[in-house]
Order: sequence, then structure tokens, then C-alpha cells
Amino acid sequence: MPIQAFENESEFVRWLRRVAPAQRGRLKLGIGDDAALIAAGRGHELILATDLSIEGIHFLPPIHPPRSVGHRALARSLSDIAAMGGTPRFALISLALSRRTTRRWVEEFYAGLLDLAGRFGVALIGGDTAIVPGRTVIDVIVCGEAPVAGALRRAGARPGDQILVSGRLGLSALGLRLLRRHRKSARDFRPASTRSAGIADEATLAHLYPQPRCGLGSFLARRRLASAMIDVSDGLSTDLAHLCAASGVGACLWEEQIPGPSRSQGVISQGDARNLALHGGEDYELLFTVPRRRAARLPHRHRGVPLTCIGEIQRSNDLVLVRRDGKTQELCPAGWDYFRDSNR
Amino acid sequence: MPIQAFENESEFVRWLRRVAPAQRGRLKLGIGDDAALIAAGRGHELILATDLSIEGIHFLPPIHPPRSVGHRALARSLSDIAAMGGTPRFALISLALSRRTTRRWVEEFYAGLLDLAGRFGVALIGGDTAIVPGRTVIDVIVCGEAPVAGALRRAGARPGDQILVSGRLGLSALGLRLLRRHRKSARDFRPASTRSAGIADEATLAHLYPQPRCGLGSFLARRRLASAMIDVSDGLSTDLAHLCAASGVGACLWEEQIPGPSRSQGVISQGDARNLALHGGEDYELLFTVPRRRAARLPHRHRGVPLTCIGEIQRSNDLVLVRRDGKTQELCPAGWDYFRDSNR
Repeated sequence: MPIQAFENESEFVRWLRRVAPAQRGRLKLGIGDDAALIAAGRGHELILATDLSIEGIHFLPPIHPPRSVGHRALARSLSDIAAMGGTPRFALISLALSRRTTRRWVEEFYAGLLDLAGRFGVALIGGDTAIVPGRTVIDVIVCGEAPVAGALRRAGARPGDQILVSGRLGLSALGLRLLRRHRKSARDFRPASTRSAGIADEATLAHLYPQPRCGLGSFLARRRLASAMIDVSDGLSTDLAHLCAASGVGACLWEEQIPGPSRSQGVISQGDARNLALHGGEDYELLFTVPRRRAARLPHRHRGVPLTCIGEIQRSNDLVLVRRDGKTQELCPAGWDYFRDSNR
Repeated sequence: MPIQAFENESEFVRWLRRVAPAQRGRLKLGIGDDAALIAAGRGHELILATDLSIEGIHFLPPIHPPRSVGHRALARSLSDIAAMGGTPRFALISLALSRRTTRRWVEEFYAGLLDLAGRFGVALIGGDTAIVPGRTVIDVIVCGEAPVAGALRRAGARPGDQILVSGRLGLSALGLRLLRRHRKSARDFRPASTRSAGIADEATLAHLYPQPRCGLGSFLARRRLASAMIDVSDGLSTDLAHLCAASGVGACLWEEQIPGPSRSQGVISQGDARNLALHGGEDYELLFTVPRRRAARLPHRHRGVPLTCIGEIQRSNDLVLVRRDGKTQELCPAGWDYFRDSNR
């Protein structure tokens, strides 16, 4: 029997919150947000995030070179810490390695992971390793910290708050599409080749080597600019729905304002670009809300990354998209959901 | 190509310690021990342990009921915290669930896990979940704490120290053997049936529902009785070798003293009992060393669990077994090693 266990991830999380005993005391935030939050003394709260990366689901051997697999596996968890406004400090890696794995793969995997860890000052401090007959499964745990009561959550958005997003959305999904078309080229893309990259190169790079926004996240938390935050890992429509559900609000997005893949070079159509920006996942940009009175203090860019206002939080629970033609439509969460999508 | 990557787990850990940048500052203990140790303020050190449980390797669907799978998955990480002398506080679960999984399996799995968590005051605070076409892979992360400089490590044993072990060894491996023989009976074993259990029941129970020794571990750390500690997860011979390698010493074990499975009821022969006690894994008992001058302060039991002196640390790097007949033989690590054993 296929997993009729739970209809989607939200249902699973609701169930788990119900069966796991409610926690008090030092636990500040538990099941259901990007990461867990624990009081830790020294004026800090501890943030714990864990993310699976699975062969055949999160990475595809002919498309993703091992260096990218290592980078992406860590980036997923770093982005969770960024979404809380925290600073990542330590990482543990649990690695169920397929029996087919070569030493070269392991070396390149760790090279990609340690490169990214080094750039964020994150220390690899432990983990577990096993050899499995099936597919490789990677679990990356990142331990970060945030000032007491300074961490940002999914809950906290209020009607009237502006909705902002960092960078551009849909690039990663576009990059994956391009890589699927030209399988051989994946190994040629390295972070070093960023400069003078066209749209195709830019999207491929965004997919293979996403840049978690830890600097921006901690800036927003430190300056107390945002009221709620999540990272765009499953796709804008899905992650916005998570943020709104946690905050008990709705949202209105303006299609025209959403920074999607550029259509230069005719790689994609306008409809395509819109769908990628709305529903494409793995961009690891930050989606956050800012109360109007604080909006003036928000810069247009942070360390070169544009921050774009794409909509507004509303009292009603609906998610609405105002299209380019001025018409309004319901915005259905159509990003990634493991319980639904990996089961097709 | 099979994984010629690394000959065994020790070689992999050595390689990883070489390529991962050395850490200073708040990291007190990194790659290669039972868990990582971080300075955390409030007079405490933070302990982070993570352990994989993989279908077909750590648990076998016809043999291990889901309640036992959940219990065992958490017990592995709790035992790592126990081996540092720490107190477990929080757990995260990453669950790559096989598509074949039923809702009932998920419910029973969490019931087993949450039962054990509740008994140790451990809060389930988050994790990640995905559905996979292949086997179920579980990663349990436990976050614990120990008083500053109070955590016990593998390193620290000195020549002349006594070697002690809690409980009895080889019971879990014997239990697995019995379960393999009588597959149907696994679902009948519940912790409640402990009383009046014969050797077979006792071994089966020890295998399906091992009891991590967190109370003993933190007692030994608090009273500063032990000089080094590890949990017996891979088997006495292998875990003693780890402890000795980390401490730069050797050891002499007295076969007669090692508390193995009893031979009553004729379930096993004497040779069998010895091999199970020496090399059987997953007992999750504690193996620790005590300097002679502190040995008198050590009780014979802790909360009903016997503590048995089974040998002595020696200056030379050899591992030696004094057999019942008085003859001496080299003790080769023959417990579990994923890089070697799951590759056969």
C-alpha cells in the first residue's frame, strides 16, 4: 500500500504536534517551524535545524555533481537557520551512503559541503555514517544561535504588513530544467564561474550552488525589522501559505512585482517565468513580512541582494494573486510537498 | 563498484578529521567521539549526538515491530549522550519513510519513540520528513547537556585503571538470533512483559527495547568516578578498541569476569555465550574505566544494574583476553563496522 498515511506534510505535522507531548520551559519553539528554538543562556537562544537530502528526490546523480550535493545538503539547513534570523555555528552530517559510492564522490561531497561551511564560519563537529544497499540519504543538522527573543518565526505577520522577498525566485527550478536538458554540463558549473554568466548559467548556478541568506536573516532579526519569516524552499506559493497559516492571516501578492527569472535570451515564456517564480522551489531566498511603520528603515538591497515588496498581508485567510492584467485569482499552494509529490 | 572508499569506519573518521578544518573556541570535542561537545554558558556544555537507523540494517521489518524501531532509534542516540555522562533534553527526528509505510506503522513508531522519550524527560522538538521509493532511513538527533568539564570522553583511560561494564553483554545479539528463529513472536514482546521472563524473553526484550544508561552515565560524570567512557553499541571488542585507541593505551580483559548471557535453559553453548558477550552489539551498556584510587567509591550496582570489573588498562597498545583456561590470546575487534560489515 502506498503511504496513505498522511495526505500532505501539513497533516503529518499537525498529527505529530498532537501526539508529541506539549513542551514548556526552555523550549521556545518546537515542531512545525523552520527550526526548533531552545533557551541556552549567555543571552542566546539555540536553533536546531535538520534537513534530509535524498538521492533520486533532492539530487539526481547524472545531474548533480557530488560537490553540488554537499553544498546543497548544507545550504538547506543553513537556510532554515537564516529563516529564524540566526547565525549558524555547528553542523553534524548523517550519511547513509549507497554501496556504489566511490571515494572520489565522498571527497567531492565533503569538499562542497566544507567550502560552504567555511564561508559561513560553520564547524563540522560530528555525525554518523553507514553503507546502504539502496540510495544515498543525507541528513544535515545545523546548530545556530540567535539573541534571546530575537529569533524570527513563521507566526507574527499582521494585516497590513508588507510581504518581501530577497533575490529572485524560480531560478533554481529553471536551472534544474536546463540541467535536465543538457545533462553533461553539470560538472562544468562551479561557483567561480559566476561572473559574466547569462541567464542559463545564472539559473544553473542558482540550482547547483544556492546561497543561503544568513547575513540578511540575522540583519532583519537584529534590527527587529521583520514580523515573520520563512525561507523559500518549497516554492513561494507553498511557503507563503505556511507563513500565513502560522500567523492566522491571508495575503495578496502582485504578480508584476514578483522577481522571477528574466526572459532575456528567450529561454522561457512569460507564463513559464510566472509559474517558476510562484511555485518553483529550492531558491532558499527569504520571504518575510514588515510592519508598515518599519518599512522605511528597510534598505532596497542587502549586501547586493535586492529586497522586493511583492504584496501585503490581509485579515481574511485567503491567498490572492493580482495578475498582470489586473484580474484577481486564488493562489493555490503548488510548490513541493513530499507527502504528495514524491508519491506520484 | 562497491565502496572501496574506506576500509573501515575508523579510516573514514581519520580522513574526515584531516579534511575538516580543526576547530577551536567553543567546540570542546568534535568528530570521532560518541557525541560532540560545545560550550553553552549557564555552567553547561551542550552535547549533540546523531544516529542512523536503516531498514534492512538496523531493523528488519518482519522481526522488529514499529514500536521497537522507534524505541531503538532513539535509544541509540540517548546511549551516546549517556556515554558522555550527559543528560538528554531534546530530540529531532529525520524520517525518510518508505512509500510502503502504513499510517499504523508511523503511529506505532512514534508511540515507541515517545514512550522512551517521556521516560527520560526528552522533548521531541522537530525534524524533517520525506517519502522515499526505497527503504526507510531514520536519523535521530539528541541534544543533551553536561556540567562544564564534566563530560566523559573515550580518551582519558590510564594504565592501571579498572575496566568496568554495566549490565550484561551479548543479550541483544542473542535476542536477535532468537527472533530470527521465531519471527512471529516479535510483536508479542512489550516492555510490560519484563517480569518473570526467562533467558529467551530477557534477550528478546533486551534486543527490542534496550535501556540506555543515562542515569548511570550522569552519576559517573557527576561523581567524577570514571576516567573514560563509551557505550557498547558495536560490541565489547570493537568499542574497547575505540576507547583504547582514543586514550593511547591497551587493555587486558578477563573472560571469566565478563557478564554474558546465562547458559541456563541450554539456549546457547559456553563458546557461543563468550562470542556474544565479546562481539555482540547493540547492548547499549556503558563501558568505562576507573582509576584504582577511586574504585572503592564505586557501588556494585546502580539503580539495580550491576557494575562489573572485567579487566585492566595497560600501557602497551595490545588488547589481550585472559581465557577461562588461563591462556592469553589477542583480542581482535570483531564487532560491527558499517564500512566492512554492511558491504559483505
